[in-house]
Amino acid sequence: MIAQTPKTPYYAVIFTSIRTENDNDYSEMAEKMLGLARKQEGYLGVESASDEIGITVSYWSDLDSIKKWKMNTEHSLAREKGRSTWYKAFKTRIALVEHDYGFEK
Amino acid sequence: MIAQTPKTPYYAVIFTSIRTENDNDYSEMAEKMLGLARKQEGYLGVESASDEIGITVSYWSDLDSIKKWKMNTEHSLAREKGRSTWYKAFKTRIALVEHDYGFEK
Repeated sequence: MIAQTPKTPYYAVIFTSIRTENDNDYSEMAEKMLGLARKQEGYLGVESASDEIGITVSYWSDLDSIKKWKMNTEHSLAREKGRSTWYKAFKTRIALVEHDYGFEK
Repeated sequence: MIAQTPKTPYYAVIFTSIRTENDNDYSEMAEKMLGLARKQEGYLGVESASDEIGITVSYWSDLDSIKKWKMNTEHSLAREKGRSTWYKAFKTRIALVEHDYGFEK
């Protein structure tokens, strides 16, 4: 559940969102998009949590893979529906992970 | 609740964690650390969500501010207690936000 990412550097896409009241198959679409993302070149992993806001961080080997995933047709349609239906607000941040460290019991 | 960050570039610290069963004043400490972080030089904002995992992303103007906050005495003590008591596992990632965009209804 904590993404097993390779040695730095790699990229993170931090997607923070506030949902509308509309459900409208949101979970099905979210699941489907995660499944699709996993198959993309350069995909490294994902972490997601939500309560009052949702935060999904996906990890990628390079910017080019992020751009390709953004242009994926099904993903583009899902994003459109996100703007029209599911999200009240969101912010997407593309970030280069320069350094990381972890801890496990 | 979505952090109002300035123009890129700026830094993100992505902290992903899995909690133990021990509560032990966790919420009080988390609140206190957020309050303290807010007062640090270079602090830009924070976003946090948790369900099965917790994700807290804090935003900073530069690496130096992140280092100073890491060395803060109260923060260091809290991190020690995190390792000994509250967290089963965590991962911290320091990332340079190169590009961002958002949407609001």
